Amino acid sequence: MSMESRDEARALDAADPLAGFRDRYVLPDGVIYLDGNSLGPMAASVPGEMAQAVEQEWGQGLISSWNDAGWWSLPVTLGEKIAPLVGAAPGQIVVSDSTSVNIYKAVQAGLQMRPDRNVLVTEAGGFPTDLYITEGVMQSERRVERRLIANPADIDRHLDADVAVLLLSHVDYRSGELLDMKAITERAQAAGAIVIWDLCHSAGVVPMSLDECNVDLAVGCTYKYLNGGPGAQSWIYAPKRLHGEIRQPLSGWWGHAAPFEFEQSYRAEPGIKAFLCGSQAILGMRALSAALDVFADVDMALVRAKSIGLTGTFIELVEAECGAHGFGLFSPRDAAIRGSQVALTHPDGYAIIQALIARGVIGDFRMPDILRFGFAPLYIGYEDVWNAVAILRDIMETGAWKAPEFAVKAAVT
Amino acid sequence: MSMESRDEARALDAADPLAGFRDRYVLPDGVIYLDGNSLGPMAASVPGEMAQAVEQEWGQGLISSWNDAGWWSLPVTLGEKIAPLVGAAPGQIVVSDSTSVNIYKAVQAGLQMRPDRNVLVTEAGGFPTDLYITEGVMQSERRVERRLIANPADIDRHLDADVAVLLLSHVDYRSGELLDMKAITERAQAAGAIVIWDLCHSAGVVPMSLDECNVDLAVGCTYKYLNGGPGAQSWIYAPKRLHGEIRQPLSGWWGHAAPFEFEQSYRAEPGIKAFLCGSQAILGMRALSAALDVFADVDMALVRAKSIGLTGTFIELVEAECGAHGFGLFSPRDAAIRGSQVALTHPDGYAIIQALIARGVIGDFRMPDILRFGFAPLYIGYEDVWNAVAILRDIMETGAWKAPEFAVKAAVT
Repeated sequence: MSMESRDEARALDAADPLAGFRDRYVLPDGVIYLDGNSLGPMAASVPGEMAQAVEQEWGQGLISSWNDAGWWSLPVTLGEKIAPLVGAAPGQIVVSDSTSVNIYKAVQAGLQMRPDRNVLVTEAGGFPTDLYITEGVMQSERRVERRLIANPADIDRHLDADVAVLLLSHVDYRSGELLDMKAITERAQAAGAIVIWDLCHSAGVVPMSLDECNVDLAVGCTYKYLNGGPGAQSWIYAPKRLHGEIRQPLSGWWGHAAPFEFEQSYRAEPGIKAFLCGSQAILGMRALSAALDVFADVDMALVRAKSIGLTGTFIELVEAECGAHGFGLFSPRDAAIRGSQVALTHPDGYAIIQALIARGVIGDFRMPDILRFGFAPLYIGYEDVWNAVAILRDIMETGAWKAPEFAVKAAVT
Repeated sequence: MSMESRDEARALDAADPLAGFRDRYVLPDGVIYLDGNSLGPMAASVPGEMAQAVEQEWGQGLISSWNDAGWWSLPVTLGEKIAPLVGAAPGQIVVSDSTSVNIYKAVQAGLQMRPDRNVLVTEAGGFPTDLYITEGVMQSERRVERRLIANPADIDRHLDADVAVLLLSHVDYRSGELLDMKAITERAQAAGAIVIWDLCHSAGVVPMSLDECNVDLAVGCTYKYLNGGPGAQSWIYAPKRLHGEIRQPLSGWWGHAAPFEFEQSYRAEPGIKAFLCGSQAILGMRALSAALDVFADVDMALVRAKSIGLTGTFIELVEAECGAHGFGLFSPRDAAIRGSQVALTHPDGYAIIQALIARGVIGDFRMPDILRFGFAPLYIGYEDVWNAVAILRDIMETGAWKAPEFAVKAAVT
């Protein structure tokens, strides 16, 4: 696709079958929000849902709302709303705890499923918290050794008979590179490993079928492309064929087969709820619930098609309009192996991102020189792409990014 | 104290220095809420705080609110609000994750501090999820053995040179028995053990000084007497003298010394933040923040005095008014070793609790025959106690509890 004018962008937006979704989100005036891969915007239905949860359910219903308002079941009911987006049949996903905690549970469960093996394989450049958690697993499971691989393309030579678990990100958090879930899962399983996919940067924007790919375990975030709200709880998947084999050390009462019997000993729930641990911040889950309701009407194939269109157009436009300004392309050029984000490189990337934010184009910076832009097809359109690149070009041509206020390096979220 | 009429109850309420706090909470009309030991009611300021968090901070501020609205610092800022309520100097408490997850972190950290010992001592009748979590620890730390003690009074003979960690509940979740934190901590430490206190049923209602008692580690809930909202995150304490020694396997990026450097290896933050793991559901934490602001004006000594008055009066009145109906007292009669709840026993306890709830008196039932009533001095008064016992007497005298709808045993939260 090429796009040569704002009029052309508007024509593409006018023909967009997803265009109607933009009104279901709140976006500040004057902002082009290309950071939904970090924190998704708020669905317009959230304030009403939160008021209901707070004023009626908590304020008036009090303790009875655990049953009457469905609080107790939220890990399951929210899991069922995520299931169709990631190609999972019902009964295989729960929402609970943070992504980091769920990675810990998944890795521990994977190790338990392969007691005669002791190696954990993951990417050296993987999402940092995934790496940190695998260090924590090594601390408590002293038999475990970790093998860090530089490139997922290399996995075959690392998949020997010692490998218990392979942990990979479906979409790389920096480059946006999208791995072939089906092929890698197959190869790892042929070598006898349990495969865990981190779907934080793909769920809600890349169609997938966890069931068809025969995935063993998967963990995903809800506050990026699923728009669940700041820090909203994470989800975890295990297929029915593995239920009953789930053993993980965060064996709290929510994962007990009979939590209200107050038995002295732990008995894991026989299904996916064996991955639950303790009480969840219900108010956070209610915002997520409203956010997921929007997805009930979404066709993920349309999302993927538009995502490829937006990211491809952005790459072409940056190269056409800003070619003289020293940007590199860090994301794959091939749309088939690209998620829904575009990462550029520039030695002055930090200052350029700050200058863009000051002009209302919200992207983010990742060390050492990466400018990251996420394109969420439910609320970003082609005219946004056009305008973002026009502003980037202006900032580069005028040297606006050199203003002293953009040079200060501070904590970046 | 004895109380012989409703007028006397009203006089006590009129003289109550804490009476003004009742208006800072929302309580449904016609309800006497004696279940704040399970789920505290909503502070009146919560809806406004939530609307601000949702509509302004998330809706308009988006990603910038991680810094600008203080989201990122909430584990610390909420910890500092809890600190004075439990006698902790600043910098020693963070709020994050569930109680079960924090018990896991604390037990693991305690074991790491005593690498030459391998026994974990805890109560056979302890809070179930604490027991379940210690089973999980044994799963991932195979060297650990668990010794279950029937009675905390017995601990001395179990505290030998193998004991690494002693985990106890400050107030028993069923009987409401209050242990002597200072004496037990001293004796366990003299035996070389790390002491972990579960404060779920005491924080916010029993004054304590974790620093003065020289406590090693402590974990508490926020949604009971602290009124933080359904499932709100838990808190964890470690004194400064142990900072730098905190190693726990849930080593996620929020506990990293430099979380935004995206380093490949984990380096624990040198202070209490080493107990953080992953992203937290911020919206849940904002309700907790509003709830804790109420406590800024609370004198915990007054809370304790009134708590003893309310529970003592309830016991006396039940015995005076319902003495013929077969109730037993499961809680300590001695106020010095009683928390802020009263547990009665009755063979038909389940039906009686259902009949009370139908009349607006909210208590709860715990297996096998325990009727639990929590008395939170910030919103419960002496007239409530009078009315609750009058309704209980009526239910017993009329046999109203025998109605078929109360006999059905269903899941109890």
